[in-house]
Amino acid sequence: MNKVGIIGYGITPFTKEDKKIESILLDSTKEIFKNNSEIDQKDIDAVLVSTNNNSKYLSPILSEIAGIQPKIAHTIENLCNSGTNSIVSAYSYIASGLADVVLISGGERYDSPGSILEWDNSRGEYKHPIFWASIFAKSYKREYSVSDEELALVSVKNHKHAKNNPNALSNKTYTIEDVINSKKLTDDLRLLDCSRPCTGSASIILGSEEKVKQYSKDPIWIRGIGQKTTSAGFTKNISFSSMESTNLAGNAALKMANKQTEDIDVAEIHDAFSVCEPMILESLGFSDEGKGMSMIKELHQTNNYKINPRGGLIGSGHPLGVTGIAQTIEIAQQLQSDASNRQVKDANVGLVHNMSAAATSSTVLVLEK
Amino acid sequence: MNKVGIIGYGITPFTKEDKKIESILLDSTKEIFKNNSEIDQKDIDAVLVSTNNNSKYLSPILSEIAGIQPKIAHTIENLCNSGTNSIVSAYSYIASGLADVVLISGGERYDSPGSILEWDNSRGEYKHPIFWASIFAKSYKREYSVSDEELALVSVKNHKHAKNNPNALSNKTYTIEDVINSKKLTDDLRLLDCSRPCTGSASIILGSEEKVKQYSKDPIWIRGIGQKTTSAGFTKNISFSSMESTNLAGNAALKMANKQTEDIDVAEIHDAFSVCEPMILESLGFSDEGKGMSMIKELHQTNNYKINPRGGLIGSGHPLGVTGIAQTIEIAQQLQSDASNRQVKDANVGLVHNMSAAATSSTVLVLEK
Repeated sequence: MNKVGIIGYGITPFTKEDKKIESILLDSTKEIFKNNSEIDQKDIDAVLVSTNNNSKYLSPILSEIAGIQPKIAHTIENLCNSGTNSIVSAYSYIASGLADVVLISGGERYDSPGSILEWDNSRGEYKHPIFWASIFAKSYKREYSVSDEELALVSVKNHKHAKNNPNALSNKTYTIEDVINSKKLTDDLRLLDCSRPCTGSASIILGSEEKVKQYSKDPIWIRGIGQKTTSAGFTKNISFSSMESTNLAGNAALKMANKQTEDIDVAEIHDAFSVCEPMILESLGFSDEGKGMSMIKELHQTNNYKINPRGGLIGSGHPLGVTGIAQTIEIAQQLQSDASNRQVKDANVGLVHNMSAAATSSTVLVLEK
Repeated sequence: MNKVGIIGYGITPFTKEDKKIESILLDSTKEIFKNNSEIDQKDIDAVLVSTNNNSKYLSPILSEIAGIQPKIAHTIENLCNSGTNSIVSAYSYIASGLADVVLISGGERYDSPGSILEWDNSRGEYKHPIFWASIFAKSYKREYSVSDEELALVSVKNHKHAKNNPNALSNKTYTIEDVINSKKLTDDLRLLDCSRPCTGSASIILGSEEKVKQYSKDPIWIRGIGQKTTSAGFTKNISFSSMESTNLAGNAALKMANKQTEDIDVAEIHDAFSVCEPMILESLGFSDEGKGMSMIKELHQTNNYKINPRGGLIGSGHPLGVTGIAQTIEIAQQLQSDASNRQVKDANVGLVHNMSAAATSSTVLVLEK
């Protein structure tokens, strides 16, 4: 298989701005050409748009307004992990030889239709993700004797990290009391336990080995890819306290990269709700079952940014189709020692975990310098 | 690059039925497992959904209701050539080694939101495709002195073919007078010059060389792929009488397959409107510039089904994201000598042409036994 790496990236602040989706997509696309002056529009073989927006045909529209005439052009959508699905698709276009250089552009509005589903056969009739997150929280707390106050620490830590991320939606830090006193949305979740949809844009250019060496001074390689779609289990007798698809995707990505969890220096994981972070850490093997919160507590106390350095979804905001791309950019910046106040020391190998709909689908990427 | 071929397919009648998109997608997915009993749900590594429907996250939903737990799962959209974009994406997943067996499932409702675009920067403010088709018709007729009566023959021929396609939306044949006397929609186009949106479903399973040999008794291989996105030119000084993206995609696909236009025994081309058929034949090199209608006349008079044997979009109906998949299934059936009354004699090499939005994007595939 051909080697695939990152040539460049562009990202703009996550906001609550009311802008047209075409303009949002153009924001980070312009940024990418500004940041990487050696690459030109005519080098782009494919433009993949990652979004949940209902506008059709956004890749040719973005291509037209950005001055690109790609061979391959289409939109990819899989709810909250559209971003990493697009990156994996770009990887396959390059690894197969159908393209040498691919632009992936993610854009989302704060009012993305993906935030509310009319009907989801795979997890019962839950229009709002808060309901499945509540089931997870109730189950996880009961199974491992975890309190609301303990879970609140995820939000405290990730808001602290986001304070050092100039593109994050949140610019505030909170105490455990602040989280507990924030608006109670369900029995088990409060407002500050939740990531918030927002307007955002993030783009990455991937290339073949030859193109990466030609255009990037500091190449980052995609070494491992794991993906899995399973039932979230609302109709089946599986656990609500762990994430099967995340476990399978993580194992596959680490195996492909020939790495162990211990080799990972920095990771972006999909904390759509506070309870997700310990569950994901456990499902990926970063900690033992039921011990995710102990790990998070230690990281927080030692001011270690290893997990979710940009502030996670809770601190950064969650523009659905953009999140996986923003996570991947953060890991690339960390591996390039370019993450300023958020920098994790000696980061050589990084991991991205991005999922959708109660971990029905998970994608895991392993990146390396 | 790994060889990629067709393992099986399923297609159901195109109708005006009012059904949920999940049920529509399931229709041809069930059909595919019924037609290909040797393949099992657990063999499927990826499920790609092709649609313009606004429902999110349809691949995991289809997977859940069809009993599939794929690694890769997402939706692909690029308006009217979503179908072939999905096939090319599946090809790249297999050729890159990320998947061995991919299910592509296309589904669309008669009221697809892709039929009307709110705003399309790449071709001016034309909500309805009839307007760009009118510009093409006016320009083509003027440049090559073609009459409305001559163009009407495309509809006459393709409705005749559709009569032999049990899945076609239309079951009627028409005379040139019928076309001319059908409702005038613009100065240059009548109702019977147009393809009609409809409800439809078509699915294909692609596989690696090993899997195709294991599961298919009559393998069809994807030999050539060409794709191009350009401006439709409404703001630029290019021709309205030819299709640049089609020409470039066609040349690329033939080159990859190491074939000439003369080698093509049967072709499905994207006759969204009658004028498209001669324009595409010319842009693909099947006929000289301005001579597309002569070729169509001769095919019709000799009852030769070489071009659009299933009745094209005009006769079969045009369920946007399904069309490219249905076209590919037709070519596979032709090459397998399984097209009953529509069978083209000695069909060994076939071509699929699928485009979107006034040929802003074109995809061309070359298939071979």
